[in-house]
Amino acid sequence: MTAAELTTLLHQEIPLSQALGLAVEMAEPNRLRVSGPFDANRNLHGTVFAGSIYCFATLAGWSLVHDYCRRQQLPASVVLRHADIRYLRPLTGAPVAEAWLPEPEDVEQFLHSLRSKGRGRLLVPAELKEGEQVAAKFLGEYVAVRAEH
Amino acid sequence: MTAAELTTLLHQEIPLSQALGLAVEMAEPNRLRVSGPFDANRNLHGTVFAGSIYCFATLAGWSLVHDYCRRQQLPASVVLRHADIRYLRPLTGAPVAEAWLPEPEDVEQFLHSLRSKGRGRLLVPAELKEGEQVAAKFLGEYVAVRAEH
Repeated sequence: MTAAELTTLLHQEIPLSQALGLAVEMAEPNRLRVSGPFDANRNLHGTVFAGSIYCFATLAGWSLVHDYCRRQQLPASVVLRHADIRYLRPLTGAPVAEAWLPEPEDVEQFLHSLRSKGRGRLLVPAELKEGEQVAAKFLGEYVAVRAEH
Repeated sequence: MTAAELTTLLHQEIPLSQALGLAVEMAEPNRLRVSGPFDANRNLHGTVFAGSIYCFATLAGWSLVHDYCRRQQLPASVVLRHADIRYLRPLTGAPVAEAWLPEPEDVEQFLHSLRSKGRGRLLVPAELKEGEQVAAKFLGEYVAVRAEH
């Protein structure tokens, strides 16, 4: 799917993504980037709300896994099972989150499991930056279940 | 602060809390509950979006710590440093998140540090339930820094 198609899918199916002002900016096979405006996502410290940061990271990861399964001709229903997020410094500008696929052997094992058992899990990292420095580090465990044919 | 005052504070200072439809339902000294509507928080599986679940949990925890510091006459600026969330089962109804203070000795240490060093950290658990069963377990590490006088 293109970045625009993924944005439309998220806006249609997850209303909160509209409130976040989220747009998929880039959707490459191994890497995906989402962004949004500052104002809708601010908190009382004048920085980006921790919950918004999490939503951008988790939707970057989810979109990457969803799109990856489609590219592999293995369309799947993808859900988040577990996540860990560390806030390293405040984010004072518009949030941009980037997620990427993990090591090739982990992706291979995920694909093998999805093909053979109809189900696979993948740990997907994502980050948001403040200038050149990492503001938040996210790691999400996504579970994909193959769509019925 | 009353539950209504906390709701107003969140809506004013964190615009996303309005989009979540979040309201503080109960604000006791040791326990705080927030809730919201299903529709604004649904995902493409017809259940509650993982990011919404996280936002309800983190705002329950944040409101509890913010309010607790005020009750102790130690008003503080509270931020989330780290969080871990586990999704155990889908949530098919309106989200309700409850956060509570940890063990008394941990709270005592937090207060001691906040009084003596002007800064303290507290691990706050929160949960969302589907009927009687836990749907998501959250643990947030909040850092409070005393407000300047």
